[in-house]
Amino acid sequence: MSRVYNFAAGPAAMPESVLKQAAAELVEFPGAGMSVMEMSHRGKKYIEIFENSRAAFNEAMGIPEGYTTLFLQGGATGQFAAVPLNLIDGESYVTAAYANTGNFASAAIKEARTFYSVRVVADSGKDGYTYIPEVTGVLPTDAYLHITTNNTVYGTRYDRLPESPAPLVADMSSNILSEVYDVTKFGVIYAGAQKNIGPAGLTVVIVRNDLLGRPNKHCLKILNWTEQAKADSMLNTPPTFAIYLAGLCAKWVLAQGGVSALEQVNVAKANLLYDVIDCGAFYTNPVKKEYRSRMNVIFKTPSEELDAAFVKEAEKAGLSGLKGYRTVGGMRASIYNAMPFEGANALADFMKAFEARNK
Amino acid sequence: MSRVYNFAAGPAAMPESVLKQAAAELVEFPGAGMSVMEMSHRGKKYIEIFENSRAAFNEAMGIPEGYTTLFLQGGATGQFAAVPLNLIDGESYVTAAYANTGNFASAAIKEARTFYSVRVVADSGKDGYTYIPEVTGVLPTDAYLHITTNNTVYGTRYDRLPESPAPLVADMSSNILSEVYDVTKFGVIYAGAQKNIGPAGLTVVIVRNDLLGRPNKHCLKILNWTEQAKADSMLNTPPTFAIYLAGLCAKWVLAQGGVSALEQVNVAKANLLYDVIDCGAFYTNPVKKEYRSRMNVIFKTPSEELDAAFVKEAEKAGLSGLKGYRTVGGMRASIYNAMPFEGANALADFMKAFEARNK
Repeated sequence: MSRVYNFAAGPAAMPESVLKQAAAELVEFPGAGMSVMEMSHRGKKYIEIFENSRAAFNEAMGIPEGYTTLFLQGGATGQFAAVPLNLIDGESYVTAAYANTGNFASAAIKEARTFYSVRVVADSGKDGYTYIPEVTGVLPTDAYLHITTNNTVYGTRYDRLPESPAPLVADMSSNILSEVYDVTKFGVIYAGAQKNIGPAGLTVVIVRNDLLGRPNKHCLKILNWTEQAKADSMLNTPPTFAIYLAGLCAKWVLAQGGVSALEQVNVAKANLLYDVIDCGAFYTNPVKKEYRSRMNVIFKTPSEELDAAFVKEAEKAGLSGLKGYRTVGGMRASIYNAMPFEGANALADFMKAFEARNK
Repeated sequence: MSRVYNFAAGPAAMPESVLKQAAAELVEFPGAGMSVMEMSHRGKKYIEIFENSRAAFNEAMGIPEGYTTLFLQGGATGQFAAVPLNLIDGESYVTAAYANTGNFASAAIKEARTFYSVRVVADSGKDGYTYIPEVTGVLPTDAYLHITTNNTVYGTRYDRLPESPAPLVADMSSNILSEVYDVTKFGVIYAGAQKNIGPAGLTVVIVRNDLLGRPNKHCLKILNWTEQAKADSMLNTPPTFAIYLAGLCAKWVLAQGGVSALEQVNVAKANLLYDVIDCGAFYTNPVKKEYRSRMNVIFKTPSEELDAAFVKEAEKAGLSGLKGYRTVGGMRASIYNAMPFEGANALADFMKAFEARNK
């Protein structure tokens, strides 16, 4: 069996060249006499790998002076718990603002509300999350405004960042490294690795340095950004192999011409699919055009039966992972950085042929 | 360069056959058309890998009915925070007991003390952690007694489990799967994977089912065993590739004859090294004999200069990672399951030759 085009939402496709290099170096990293997985995280060899990974990631992401990049664990679910623990200190800051734009946004709100007084300042939930709502009412006294830059389940994306008098905290899990962001607009960016950074099990947190040093008294050691920054992400054993792979992926991003070059390809890939959806009456996508995700293209055929047939026939044609999220139904094509243009093109062709056969 | 004998304390040596299989399957898992890393954790193929890994681990560990095995993230540092969050419910249970036998034991106590009223019921810290202290004064009203079955830094090990009227909670990170334990003696066992289970980035938690359902109100979703058990460890994206590797390692354990067979080899490996230490006056080990670790053998030569020379010359001889922990000095040979008898034997020979050259 040859490699398929993998449209899974995450864990997701990774660059084939990265996988090949990882396979070649897996039993013995060149000159080390052992696998990267077997190296002590305190050893010279591994520290070099770690620093190379972070440098490549920082270069790809355009991290400016004054920010700290942490390589942690626990995914966005861990970090949306960490955000209030690290920023609502209970003294200078007792509230925070949240925009509710989808599944992870509302999970983040639910977790924060269990412990803190937070306000929802924008919400598209009543309209099935089909657009990005206007954000209003953030106060300068809020610890932060929390947003989710791309919503994997509902296929939406902020077309511009909201204005906010409080630091902007973004869950960027599903579109980090896929388009150019000005990092200086953010107080904190966090992302699970399993879409555009590397394999599952690594979580990247980028913190503006002036936001370190204000954890509240309930902040656990493992989630404490200030402590992790002091320990250079090695307060505890980091996910060493995942960090090595994230480095290979970041170097791959740079070799493609960087995020700006990939962004152009990503726009072209998304347009291919949205064009097929929009050109007839067979496929539908519920998202207002300006808010359509470039990473997760959701669509339906006229019936659930046809949706099921689509997913099944696509799988046979080597187009894998297209089933939509369980609460949404239909199809979802996740086209992260590692999905080549040819893959999106193959899907567009398949969609046209499926439409022709079934309309 | 050929593979060295890797005596690192963790991340540590892994079985070469496991690494070879992982390398062969890395770009494309047989029949899947993609890497394990690229598979959706909700997909049929990955669920099968996940369940195979858990079944192999449970078989190797001898997990009986009535226990739940969770595959999580965050290491022992995450789990020693999770223990009180999940067991000191603040209603039926408001206290817990801890035995202080080393670095991770005292870190666990420190973390618990930040938030809870916990008592240290045994402490060998005043004697440099050179033995396992008697545990007395655990109450039936304590939520649990927390122990660390093997202490990586100080090279000690419980020769027998303490009697306790409260459930026994064990950090078994550094000797899990290396000797036979009767799991029914424990309420909870947790372990970072990076010593005997697999690569760093995976944490295994084994919970007796009656201890589920009592998290306190501060328990974060990500650390909530009850929620993770309900979600079959997939409340959030698990570290998919690390879990696959843990499965390969568990199958390797079973292929060696299981934990009981490995325990015999481990005892033989440790004895080889302790015999060299004890047979002359050149090497010293501070641990009372009955409490000596079988996984981490610590020793010193007569001087710091000779210690440094030992580490350097051993490295050149293909015996890697022998430098002692920074606060302890000297040498530490970590001889987990994946260290073959030949590796321990090569070290014993090197020790004898080094002694002959330098005494």
